[in-house]
Amino acid sequence: MKELFNLLKEKGLTLGCVESMTGGLFAAGFVSVPGSSKVFKGGLVTYSVEEKTKLLGMEENLINYFGVVSKEVAGEMALKGQKVLNVDLCVSITGNAGPTAEPGGQPVGRAYVGVSLKDKNYVFELNLKGNRNKIRQRAVLAMQEKIIEILKK
Amino acid sequence: MKELFNLLKEKGLTLGCVESMTGGLFAAGFVSVPGSSKVFKGGLVTYSVEEKTKLLGMEENLINYFGVVSKEVAGEMALKGQKVLNVDLCVSITGNAGPTAEPGGQPVGRAYVGVSLKDKNYVFELNLKGNRNKIRQRAVLAMQEKIIEILKK
Repeated sequence: MKELFNLLKEKGLTLGCVESMTGGLFAAGFVSVPGSSKVFKGGLVTYSVEEKTKLLGMEENLINYFGVVSKEVAGEMALKGQKVLNVDLCVSITGNAGPTAEPGGQPVGRAYVGVSLKDKNYVFELNLKGNRNKIRQRAVLAMQEKIIEILKK
Repeated sequence: MKELFNLLKEKGLTLGCVESMTGGLFAAGFVSVPGSSKVFKGGLVTYSVEEKTKLLGMEENLINYFGVVSKEVAGEMALKGQKVLNVDLCVSITGNAGPTAEPGGQPVGRAYVGVSLKDKNYVFELNLKGNRNKIRQRAVLAMQEKIIEILKK
């Protein structure tokens, strides 16, 4: 997380996150860097659909239509999170960490990362391998990488 | 976290959390238990004072008066979090994980845990040893223990 912290600090950007699948792991990783409070303002762990609508003001219809693990939902989580948390950059994640896939749902290891940076929005699809905890850790690494990629553009 | 999960499930209670010092580590630990979504609804990582006022609706005056690391702030975080997240039990934490203490502030390792369970509120003082990351891990363990204590009363 150190590289990401340095990049954000250098650019004077504040960071927030909205996590579903990773349940707070991205935030916890980022604040393990000393001085992180200069950059990181806060995060939401919107684990249930209710919290996605309640905390973020997302439309339940959108979640039902596209499915909770979808690029549309990841994109909206980042966009709404950016506003609710009042940050320059908001990263979001929704995915299926297993152990089982819901009928008709996304396979285990499929996740979507959203990034809202000022007025730009990005969504990335991830296909991660491993057990529930490995998938989560890999998702957090991918979130870092994607933000770094965007910041270095 | 397995014991806590089983207790909450047995009693049919929903869980949420509001974390400052631990930055999402409690939430991430809880959702590592398979099936946690039956109990855990969501969490807030209110790392900055701004997020404590913005997400929780806390009074900035109260934070300034008692200090951000205080039993009053921990109590309010749990109480407001319980409402915002719409959960039966909300646990909160605010503390100083180090590496340094602010002038006139609380010593490194001092933290306060708040628990709101239905119409009851509890606050506990912790004095934790170790480096920044050890203090955080020990804080999460203490949060679990305190909730279990209350649930077994």
